[in-house]
Amino acid sequence: MIAGPCAVESPRQMLLAAQAVKRAGAKCLRGGAYKPRTSPYSFQGLGLQGLQILHEVSQKVKMPAVTEVVEVGDVAAVERYASAFQVGARNMQNFRLLKALGQSRKPVILKRGMAASVEDLLLAAEYILSEGNANVILCERGIRTFETATRNTLDLNAIPHIKTHSHLPVIVDPSHGTGVREYVAPMARAAVACGADGLLVEVHPNPKEALSDGHQSLDFRQFASLMRSLRPFVKAAGRRF
Amino acid sequence: MIAGPCAVESPRQMLLAAQAVKRAGAKCLRGGAYKPRTSPYSFQGLGLQGLQILHEVSQKVKMPAVTEVVEVGDVAAVERYASAFQVGARNMQNFRLLKALGQSRKPVILKRGMAASVEDLLLAAEYILSEGNANVILCERGIRTFETATRNTLDLNAIPHIKTHSHLPVIVDPSHGTGVREYVAPMARAAVACGADGLLVEVHPNPKEALSDGHQSLDFRQFASLMRSLRPFVKAAGRRF
Amino acid sequence: MIAGPCAVESPRQMLLAAQAVKRAGAKCLRGGAYKPRTSPYSFQGLGLQGLQILHEVSQKVKMPAVTEVVEVGDVAAVERYASAFQVGARNMQNFRLLKALGQSRKPVILKRGMAASVEDLLLAAEYILSEGNANVILCERGIRTFETATRNTLDLNAIPHIKTHSHLPVIVDPSHGTGVREYVAPMARAAVACGADGLLVEVHPNPKEALSDGHQSLDFRQFASLMRSLRPFVKAAGRRF
Amino acid sequence: MIAGPCAVESPRQMLLAAQAVKRAGAKCLRGGAYKPRTSPYSFQGLGLQGLQILHEVSQKVKMPAVTEVVEVGDVAAVERYASAFQVGARNMQNFRLLKALGQSRKPVILKRGMAASVEDLLLAAEYILSEGNANVILCERGIRTFETATRNTLDLNAIPHIKTHSHLPVIVDPSHGTGVREYVAPMARAAVACGADGLLVEVHPNPKEALSDGHQSLDFRQFASLMRSLRPFVKAAGRRF
Repeated sequence: MIAGPCAVESPRQMLLAAQAVKRAGAKCLRGGAYKPRTSPYSFQGLGLQGLQILHEVSQKVKMPAVTEVVEVGDVAAVERYASAFQVGARNMQNFRLLKALGQSRKPVILKRGMAASVEDLLLAAEYILSEGNANVILCERGIRTFETATRNTLDLNAIPHIKTHSHLPVIVDPSHGTGVREYVAPMARAAVACGADGLLVEVHPNPKEALSDGHQSLDFRQFASLMRSLRPFVKAAGRRF
Repeated sequence: MIAGPCAVESPRQMLLAAQAVKRAGAKCLRGGAYKPRTSPYSFQGLGLQGLQILHEVSQKVKMPAVTEVVEVGDVAAVERYASAFQVGARNMQNFRLLKALGQSRKPVILKRGMAASVEDLLLAAEYILSEGNANVILCERGIRTFETATRNTLDLNAIPHIKTHSHLPVIVDPSHGTGVREYVAPMARAAVACGADGLLVEVHPNPKEALSDGHQSLDFRQFASLMRSLRPFVKAAGRRF
Repeated sequence: MIAGPCAVESPRQMLLAAQAVKRAGAKCLRGGAYKPRTSPYSFQGLGLQGLQILHEVSQKVKMPAVTEVVEVGDVAAVERYASAFQVGARNMQNFRLLKALGQSRKPVILKRGMAASVEDLLLAAEYILSEGNANVILCERGIRTFETATRNTLDLNAIPHIKTHSHLPVIVDPSHGTGVREYVAPMARAAVACGADGLLVEVHPNPKEALSDGHQSLDFRQFASLMRSLRPFVKAAGRRF
Repeated sequence: MIAGPCAVESPRQMLLAAQAVKRAGAKCLRGGAYKPRTSPYSFQGLGLQGLQILHEVSQKVKMPAVTEVVEVGDVAAVERYASAFQVGARNMQNFRLLKALGQSRKPVILKRGMAASVEDLLLAAEYILSEGNANVILCERGIRTFETATRNTLDLNAIPHIKTHSHLPVIVDPSHGTGVREYVAPMARAAVACGADGLLVEVHPNPKEALSDGHQSLDFRQFASLMRSLRPFVKAAGRRF
C-alpha cells in the first residue's frame, strides 16, 4: 500500500500525511513535486523543494517514498531524493524518459496512459526493461471512455490480462481511476480481489484545501477505514500487506 | 449466482448444465431461447421450443430460470415459461419492450447497453418501474471502449456508482464483460468485493462445441472452482450466496 | 436532402417546416411520430396521430416522407402513412424489427448505433436484405466517445469505409452527429466532400420551443443558408441534389 | 499543404519525396528524424543525421520543413535545422517540452493526443502561448474509439468546434487519422470542406518499403491525384493552396 497526498504542499502537510498513512498500515509514501497539469494556470508543484521535503519526511517516518518524474533532466534529482520513480499517464509514451529510467536501478512505477491499451503499456515497459532496469511496476489508473459518472474508467480487466501476459507486478490507483472519493474503497477491494499486487491511494490532511485532486483524496479517518475494510479481502486473496 | 449456458441447445445439454451448476451452488438457471446475434447467419436460438426445454429442466432440478425476451410479442410466452425476464444490452433502450415488462410482476434483469452510461441505464429502468413493476435488477456487462484485450470493458466502477444513486439491486456478468474464460473468475471476485448483489455466469457442458459464446463459457470443473474461490470473498463482503 | 423536424408536434408546425424545407431545395421530408427517448418522462411523440399529420402534409406539399418505426407492431401503420422507414440508432440491433422491415418493399434508412462498428451496421443491414428488401440506406449519425464537446462524434471515416465494403447508399445526419446547431453546416459540407449520398437534417420553425432536440435543429433561415453553402461542394463532388 | 515521408530514411528517399510533393503543389515538407514508436524494437528514426538530411533537402528544393521534437534537450537542434516544430500526439501533454517551445519563435504544430478532448488540446496550446510563442498551429489527427475499421477515428467535428472557441489555425492529418491509404483523399476533402486551414499528409517514394507507417502513406501518383481532387473543394471553401 502506497499512500500520500497528490502533491507535496508543505513540510507540515507532508509530515502529517506520512504519519497518518503509516499509522494506518501503509508501507510506502507518495507525494508529487513535479505535477503535470492539464492547464498551465493550475498549481504545478514545488519542484526541487518538494523533492527535498518528501525526502526529509520519508527519513523521519522511515518509509520509502515514490514521486513522479516528468523530464529526462530531472531523473538525477529524483533518483537522489526518492526511493522509486513514478511515470505518469501523460508520459507513458515519453520514450526518452523511459530509456533514461532504464539506466537507473531504482524501481519505476509506470502508469497506464488514458488511451493506452494494455499492449501499449507492456511495450512501454519494454523501453525501461531493454535498457537494463528490471524493476518495473505497472499501474492501472483508468482509461478514457464515454462514461462521465467517473473521471476515468478504472479498467480492472487489465489485471488478469497482465497477469497472464507478463511477469511484472501490477498495482492499481483507484483515486485517479474513479476520481470520486466514495468509490475509492470499493474499487480498492475489487483490485485486491482480482489479483492486484498493490494499491496507490491519495490521502490528504484536508482534502477540501488540497492544491490538486482534492475531490478524490481520502482524509485520515477515511484512509484508516479503507485499510480496515481491505484486510479480509487481502486475506481472502491469500496475500499480506 | 445465476448460471447456465448462453443458449438452450437441447434438453440434454440444458439438463446437464442445470445439474452441474446446482451441484456447485448456483441458485438460479440461465439459458437463452431467443438469441439476438450480430449476424443473421449465426445461430438464432430455438425460440418457443427452447423456452419449453428451459421450463422442463427448471422444474426437474427445482431452480428458477431466467431467459432473454427480445420482442413485445414474446412477453406472454416468456412470462409463462420462465421465472424472470432478461433484457439484453442491445434492447436496453427498446422502450416499448421495457413498458410491456412494466406490466408484468415477474423480475426483470436489465442489462446495460454497450454505449449506455449508468444514467441511461437508470432511466431505462424507469420505463419499467413507472409502469408498476418494481422488480428490476440492473446488470453490468461491459461497455465498448478502445481496449481490445477484452471483448468489452467490464465497468465495475458502475457498482459503487449505482449503489449511491439507486436502491435497485445490481448484478455483474463477467462472461460477457470480459469475453475471456480465464478472466471470468478474477472479475467475479472483484464484482463481489466492490458490492455487487449477484453474478450471471455462462456455463456449458462443452464450451468448445457451444453454438454461441463458447470462448467465454466455463466448463463444469471451472465453474465449481469459481464457486469455491468466491466463498472467502463473499464472506469478506459480509454476504451469503 | 431529407429535412424536417425531429418530432411531429402539430399540423401547423409540420406544414410550415415542410413548405420551408421544400422551398430551400430539400427533396424529402422527415418527422418523428414515435420517439424513443432516454427518459420515460420526456415527450414520446404523437404516435398514430403524428403519422397521419405527416401523411397529410406530405401529400399537400408533394414530398415523400420518412419516419421512425420502433416496434414490429407498428410496421403496417408506418408503411401505410410514410414513404420510407427509419430505424433509429437504439434499434439498430432490434433484429426482429429489421426482419419485419425485410418483408416490406419500401426503403429503410438504417441508422448506426452509438456503439456499433461499421461492421455491425453492415451485418444489421443483412437482416433486412436477407429477408428480401434490397432497399436499404445506411446512415452515419455519430458514435459515443470520450469527447464531450459534441453530443456524439460524427464518424465521417465510415463513409469511405462503407463505400469500399458495400454497394449500399450511405447518408449522414450531422444534427444528431454533432448535437450543436453551429456545427451542422460545416459537417454537412464535409459529408458531401467525403462521398456521402445524402443528408438528414433537423429543421424546426422555432427550435427554442421544439419538444425534442431543439439545440441541434436549424431554423428556416439557417437551413436555407446551409442549402446555399452546400451547392459548390455538391458540384465539386460531381453530384446533384 | 504539408507533405512528405513519415520518417527520414536516406538523402535519396527524402529528396525524391520533396521533389514529388513540390511538383504536385505542396508548400511545406515533413519528415521525422526522432520517431516515438510504441515498441522499442521498431525503427526509431535517424536522429541528428535525419535532421541534417531534412535540412539539406529543404534548402535544395526551397521548401520549409517541419519535423517532430520529442525532448527538451533536442529543441535547440531542431530549431537550427527545421522551419517549424511538430509535437506528436504522445507528447501533447509533455508540458516541459511545450514550455521550452514557448521560448522559441518558430511555429509549433501541436497534434491532438489520442485521448485528448479539444479542451485539453487548447489548454496544452496555452502552455506554449503563455511562454510567449504565439505561433501555434493545432492539428487534428484522430482519437481512440472502439471503432477498429480505421486506426484512429479522425474527429473532424473538432474543426468547427476549434473555430468557434479559438483564434488558432487548425490543420488535419488524414494519414494518421485514418491509417488507411484509400481513406486519406476523401477525408482530406472533408477536412477542407469543414473549415480546416491546412493538411498534413504522408507521402513516400515506395510505401511498401517504408520503415514506418507505409500502409497509410501515398505514393507520388496518389498524392498528385489527391492534389487534383482537392482543388474544386478548396475553391468551394473560398480558400487557396
